Amino acid sequence: MRICRFNDNRLGVVLGKHVHDVSAVLERLPTFRYPLPEHDPLMAALPELRTAMEELADRAEPLPLNSVNLLSPVASPRKIVAAPVNYRLHHEEALADENIHHGTNILPIDKAGLFLKATSALVGPSAGVEIRFPGERNDHEIELVAVIGRRADRVSRDEALSYIAGYAIGLDMTVRGTQERSMRKSCNSYAVLGPWMVTADEIPDPSNLEMELTVNGETRQKASTSYLLRDVATLIERASSFYTLMPGDLLYTGTPEGVAPVEAGDRIHARISGIGDMDVLVR
Amino acid sequence: MRICRFNDNRLGVVLGKHVHDVSAVLERLPTFRYPLPEHDPLMAALPELRTAMEELADRAEPLPLNSVNLLSPVASPRKIVAAPVNYRLHHEEALADENIHHGTNILPIDKAGLFLKATSALVGPSAGVEIRFPGERNDHEIELVAVIGRRADRVSRDEALSYIAGYAIGLDMTVRGTQERSMRKSCNSYAVLGPWMVTADEIPDPSNLEMELTVNGETRQKASTSYLLRDVATLIERASSFYTLMPGDLLYTGTPEGVAPVEAGDRIHARISGIGDMDVLVR
Repeated sequence: MRICRFNDNRLGVVLGKHVHDVSAVLERLPTFRYPLPEHDPLMAALPELRTAMEELADRAEPLPLNSVNLLSPVASPRKIVAAPVNYRLHHEEALADENIHHGTNILPIDKAGLFLKATSALVGPSAGVEIRFPGERNDHEIELVAVIGRRADRVSRDEALSYIAGYAIGLDMTVRGTQERSMRKSCNSYAVLGPWMVTADEIPDPSNLEMELTVNGETRQKASTSYLLRDVATLIERASSFYTLMPGDLLYTGTPEGVAPVEAGDRIHARISGIGDMDVLVR
Repeated sequence: MRICRFNDNRLGVVLGKHVHDVSAVLERLPTFRYPLPEHDPLMAALPELRTAMEELADRAEPLPLNSVNLLSPVASPRKIVAAPVNYRLHHEEALADENIHHGTNILPIDKAGLFLKATSALVGPSAGVEIRFPGERNDHEIELVAVIGRRADRVSRDEALSYIAGYAIGLDMTVRGTQERSMRKSCNSYAVLGPWMVTADEIPDPSNLEMELTVNGETRQKASTSYLLRDVATLIERASSFYTLMPGDLLYTGTPEGVAPVEAGDRIHARISGIGDMDVLVR
């Protein structure tokens, strides 16, 4: 199932080139006052809501995908975890290019561990990316993103994939500089997620997806998740060894080589096989 | 005003050595279903609720502070921002001690920027700290924490303090290693906040507070926020230049020298003048 959010916080199921509005299921979610839950309420309830969503989708008027504004398919993640230098050729380009490493020591992923992006950075494709520091280099980084479906505390690699609710395309937008990744990669709108979430049952093997990113029609990044140095399951094992992953938490799995600057006016097109594709405008 | 949370998500006002239950004001907070708000609902509503809290506190039965379990005074922050190496002597000890720097390059704060801690790491003093990696070095770091009171996007240093709702004591618990700070400092229970939040009107100058941390009665850290390399206002200016700070977001302002390991069974006592003190057990 392809689950999207669109327009004014509507929930949709994508079938072919159309969105079917299933927002009525949101009324089944619990209400909260204080404290707020430590998980994304929709992702936590998804197993119970799925049948109802399918039934509603069948009855709903189909809206053309190109007539709606796609939001981040996960509205309220509590954590965005991300993997640095998780493709060999990207690590090599980062080590080679002073404008990427800025004199900092780019440790390999097994030493660097994972980093966090601010949840306030999260946007859907329709919002686009607003360059926060036009005087600096701001790079695109296409990544496969796994959405956590259930509470994961110190899970093993072998069982890790069973904790995933689904997958989406992520852009881990990045200001280059000497700062901690968790700062440079957390500017408002620097965590793009879209175009929808494909549930995990449709992607039994996340280690064999083709991805491509173009800017204004020119290919910049083209690779396969088969080149991930540490695969999705290993990343979940590592993340959950440090902290509990909760439903709705996002795992950006790292970007392949070809990272390069974008500027206002650019149109990023990102595609991952088995998921879909999206246009993201830079302003 | 000293605002605490205690026992089963009760809201309290601390007067002397007693807690006055003012949980009734929580019913005035809005309810949410999906998406969740991007701020802490109590911190966002605090200006409107303050008078009612004072009135309720006057009428409430006082509970002895030592009879309640203190929780994190902020329940639902969306971001925990923290300053690395923000005291000169701590930077020097980090550079000198291989067991702190682990071969990584400890950049000065102006180059390192700020980092994020996972909100899933947040606990109050009564929960204590659970050592996640007993085989590694796990250090205490006492810090003054500022709680953001209103939306702050690219605010200047001059106006920055007006965005603060209050202050609390933080323990930025840390596993030493080569990993990104945003991972090593994000283990479950590695962001302690307590014992309550003192509203900003009671601390007009956060740059002149004495702090002390003892472990099992022995002084480990003793300093003053007057030694901060970059003061609270500067940190808010910098953080908000990268991302929007929201009500309830926490800013851990950095730790002075004297960081050292703790292990299960240790009792940490942390005190900051103008705020109070708290005991935190390590298990």
